[in-house]
Amino acid sequence: MKDQIRFSIRSKDTSSKARITQFETHHGVLETPVFMPVGTCATVKACTVDQLYEIDVPIILSNTYHLYLQPGDEIVKEAGGLHSFMNWKRIILTDSGGFQIFSLSQMSKIHPNGVEFKSFRDGSKHFFTPEKTISIQQNLGSDIIMPLDICTQFGTSQKDIQKSTEHTVRWASMAKKATDGNESQILFGIVQGGFTLEGRQECMEQLREIGFPGYSIGSLSVGEPRDVFEEIAHHIAPQLNDGPVYLMGVGDPYRILKAIGMGVDMFDCVLPTRIARNRTLFTRNGKITLTNKRFEKDFEPVDETCQCYTCRNYSKAYLRHLYKADEILASTLGSIHNLHFLHRMIQEAKEAIRNNTYASFMNAFLGPYEEGEKLRTREDK
Amino acid sequence: MKDQIRFSIRSKDTSSKARITQFETHHGVLETPVFMPVGTCATVKACTVDQLYEIDVPIILSNTYHLYLQPGDEIVKEAGGLHSFMNWKRIILTDSGGFQIFSLSQMSKIHPNGVEFKSFRDGSKHFFTPEKTISIQQNLGSDIIMPLDICTQFGTSQKDIQKSTEHTVRWASMAKKATDGNESQILFGIVQGGFTLEGRQECMEQLREIGFPGYSIGSLSVGEPRDVFEEIAHHIAPQLNDGPVYLMGVGDPYRILKAIGMGVDMFDCVLPTRIARNRTLFTRNGKITLTNKRFEKDFEPVDETCQCYTCRNYSKAYLRHLYKADEILASTLGSIHNLHFLHRMIQEAKEAIRNNTYASFMNAFLGPYEEGEKLRTREDK
Repeated sequence: MKDQIRFSIRSKDTSSKARITQFETHHGVLETPVFMPVGTCATVKACTVDQLYEIDVPIILSNTYHLYLQPGDEIVKEAGGLHSFMNWKRIILTDSGGFQIFSLSQMSKIHPNGVEFKSFRDGSKHFFTPEKTISIQQNLGSDIIMPLDICTQFGTSQKDIQKSTEHTVRWASMAKKATDGNESQILFGIVQGGFTLEGRQECMEQLREIGFPGYSIGSLSVGEPRDVFEEIAHHIAPQLNDGPVYLMGVGDPYRILKAIGMGVDMFDCVLPTRIARNRTLFTRNGKITLTNKRFEKDFEPVDETCQCYTCRNYSKAYLRHLYKADEILASTLGSIHNLHFLHRMIQEAKEAIRNNTYASFMNAFLGPYEEGEKLRTREDK
Repeated sequence: MKDQIRFSIRSKDTSSKARITQFETHHGVLETPVFMPVGTCATVKACTVDQLYEIDVPIILSNTYHLYLQPGDEIVKEAGGLHSFMNWKRIILTDSGGFQIFSLSQMSKIHPNGVEFKSFRDGSKHFFTPEKTISIQQNLGSDIIMPLDICTQFGTSQKDIQKSTEHTVRWASMAKKATDGNESQILFGIVQGGFTLEGRQECMEQLREIGFPGYSIGSLSVGEPRDVFEEIAHHIAPQLNDGPVYLMGVGDPYRILKAIGMGVDMFDCVLPTRIARNRTLFTRNGKITLTNKRFEKDFEPVDETCQCYTCRNYSKAYLRHLYKADEILASTLGSIHNLHFLHRMIQEAKEAIRNNTYASFMNAFLGPYEEGEKLRTREDK
């Protein structure tokens, strides 16, 4: 495993725990805070890589589970790796597939050394071990990789959570061993432990004993109450601050900005592109649903302060028409806008961090997004 | 009606009736032969206008019927016209809606002065007169417009065809009157007349008496045998050669090249983009279906001689994966390729015309496309 990532903190906000950091990957230096658009099946849905470059997206996330099933990681390897296969020249993070196994598969069964599951595509049986998910991610050639973990749902019994955590920690250790000699991929540890602070703390401490250059926080924003989310992020993130901290599956402005203020550095979620395909776009005044009748003759851009390709060239009336006509272009233009919105939001967050005004920036920005915390978006990724 | 279109023949092939022409429109000079991608609902499906500019598409076709129903031509007018609404800075041709009324509507009833029909969207009742379709197209602000016509299907009785032709000719005259004083739009006549040479000849002569700066040939490539198609195009096109000749609804390489050789200048069809969405792409060696197993590990581009965005950046294996994963990007990349393929084919046709080698160019190109004539593609436009 590549553990010399030359992590450094470039700037720290005094009004919160927000910070700007950077670290090295095989495809360049990554600066955080960063939102990673999700390219589940080796493409961010409805977008070309050039459209992502124009937004200046530095990193995307892709899915081990999906790519293993289709087209198969061996084929991606033969293509020269995922970067070459999908023509993405910047950084790629892949998850371990754990989340998808539990959320998408018709059946999943946990064994001491891995998970048995049926493909959501054709019902075929598969078995992922910690070593197998590392080997798949080696075939993909992604820059930042994740160990096999067990995701817990809010409401799971304490006993089951404890057992899951034991597996997750042991598998993390096995995954680390499996990366021996691999100097181009960075393996993060994933903090699980359910929805109590004690459970999370215990899992985190065990993972730190194994030692990783960065840590993810998994199974948050999966339907738990807002105060549970905030309590865990608030206590766990700062304890991991000697490296990058990645909060998995979070993509709404409310949680992103709150978590940045708690010291979280990295985010991913299908939310911005999914809601764009479902006709909902971010604006500085909150989310809007483009098919609303009130936009029928609204010839202004979605957000007048936005400089994205969509807002520079199209009106709400045109986008409304495209959505109503079920045109593919609606998904493309909507996704570009929502990804640009989050990118710009984070650029402004960085500016605020540099000026030590993060707390007031966040509060001002989040006014129209207070409702965002109700979103449950990671379940069906 | 703008009738000073400064039509001129720039080059004539001596081995066929193929030619290079040009004429003026409100959005620039159009050089022919040209294939016009179809943007039914104010967008070429799955493509941004910039992707079309990169292919160097000079003109697109859009649909009066569809835009009248959604978003409504009045809204497009308020947006500043179709160019402004959809952000297309080059030439736009709109059809009259006749074809869609007969092919898409749940009900259509011909009256002496127009057609009554039910919307394919919601079943609501509408009535198009020749004047109404001109007025809609004026609201859209397209550069080249079509008069309301009656499309005949192969197999229609001679008596019905004759009656339809009478309407089509009278409506063309009414449409022309309705364009009085409109100096920015070019109105073509549409030659109908069924599937006999006599019927077509008669319709054409009557339209020429009314007088139009250009002519379309309608209701061909609608399921009639190849020899009927070729006989009509072969006899009719050359008689219209003092202006642009537009063969409606034709988009397969076989018929395009055959018709260019007969003196046809303009083409449109949903075929290249529709088959692209359905996983079929053009190559110099004929069409290929990307989901074919043989492309699973084919890391070469779709067509090694092609310089389109898709072929410059992606392999058949990647496209196959995208199609199998039902990714929107497959439709985008496939459409770009197929449109580029036709554009380049026509560029090469022009080169052959300039060299007086069109006949041999056509025969060499069409080898793998002889089967193309079986395609029935206009019915469900």
